[in-house]
Amino acid sequence: MSDITLIVASKNYSSWSLRPYLALAHTGQPFREVVVALDEPNTAAEIARYSPSGRLPALQHGAIHIWDSLAICEYLAETFPQARLWPEDKAARAMARAVTAEMHSGFSALRQNMSMDLHARKPGKGRAPGVAEDIARIQALWNDCRSRFGQGGPFLFGHFSIADAFYAPVVTRFVTYDVELDAVGKAYRDAVLALPALQKWTEAARSEPPVKRYL
Amino acid sequence: MSDITLIVASKNYSSWSLRPYLALAHTGQPFREVVVALDEPNTAAEIARYSPSGRLPALQHGAIHIWDSLAICEYLAETFPQARLWPEDKAARAMARAVTAEMHSGFSALRQNMSMDLHARKPGKGRAPGVAEDIARIQALWNDCRSRFGQGGPFLFGHFSIADAFYAPVVTRFVTYDVELDAVGKAYRDAVLALPALQKWTEAARSEPPVKRYL
Repeated sequence: MSDITLIVASKNYSSWSLRPYLALAHTGQPFREVVVALDEPNTAAEIARYSPSGRLPALQHGAIHIWDSLAICEYLAETFPQARLWPEDKAARAMARAVTAEMHSGFSALRQNMSMDLHARKPGKGRAPGVAEDIARIQALWNDCRSRFGQGGPFLFGHFSIADAFYAPVVTRFVTYDVELDAVGKAYRDAVLALPALQKWTEAARSEPPVKRYL
Repeated sequence: MSDITLIVASKNYSSWSLRPYLALAHTGQPFREVVVALDEPNTAAEIARYSPSGRLPALQHGAIHIWDSLAICEYLAETFPQARLWPEDKAARAMARAVTAEMHSGFSALRQNMSMDLHARKPGKGRAPGVAEDIARIQALWNDCRSRFGQGGPFLFGHFSIADAFYAPVVTRFVTYDVELDAVGKAYRDAVLALPALQKWTEAARSEPPVKRYL
């Protein structure tokens, strides 16, 4: 019986839940999952059981309780070092943390107008002011990571890292909204979409009921 | 001659610049500072010299370049372990990262309506929808940190940590906007305001010209 529990929101809509899920899956550790149903009368009360911020995801590992996607990923990186969730090279790790933090606090135009919706296809939608700039910055960032530190493998820093967990939901948005990518972007998109953990999560999202609203 | 350079925006207005400044000052390492003037014709070009995201702060340490306040702080924590920028205890460190990440991506109502403005006094201003909830959550969070892990000292986790660097600008907002605090909040506010590095930064902010707009 595993003593790790990941509490997530909707698999179809919650990009923040998907991120630590991919990192945790990458560790190879067994873990339990709790999916909190959205838009139910008791949703807020259910979330409050797991997260003092009122937001998911959250992680429980024995007596340790953590909320926030990035804090969970940092915890996993230091608790399971053999999973190499950050690049080993100091300069690469510094850059990986910078691009991860940039995703954590930024790209608000993209997040608001091209929200994650794994099983929808919305070509041409979501082109609001600021979205094109966010897309351009993300592609520049992917190119920069791949050319500086990612030459040994298909991910941003070669092998899979937390930076990939953070940009994986962006990859799915680019599919959903049919965003044109450059050659580096296309190759990276395909590497992310081939992740078994992402495929498993996406499959589970199919059985979810649609919700009226979810940010 | 130090090989560490911190590039910041306005000292009066840039809460994101203040955060890594406090962490870096706490390491005791000598460092150079570059302050990029806002609202100038060449501001964007100046920032682009240091940060590919187009945002400050940024850190240069030899050949390593990092942007984003949280990524810089994580880098400092691992590069200068003797500064103990994260709590030593694993559970305390997990919680410190959670509350730091919560600040990094959250409290948007507070950030938009009570923006940092060190030398202004605006009692009663900024009470927009959502701000009271943000203030209540921050006070609950401070109480929770202090009671669980901060009993040995005046800061959230006893000794100064990155969590304090992240909440220090909130402390200054509560002064600027004259926000009523509970007993724990008042004691914590006074401990933060007594930090020599915060006092030095605040004094330097006095000589800045006012800017027309800064988010």
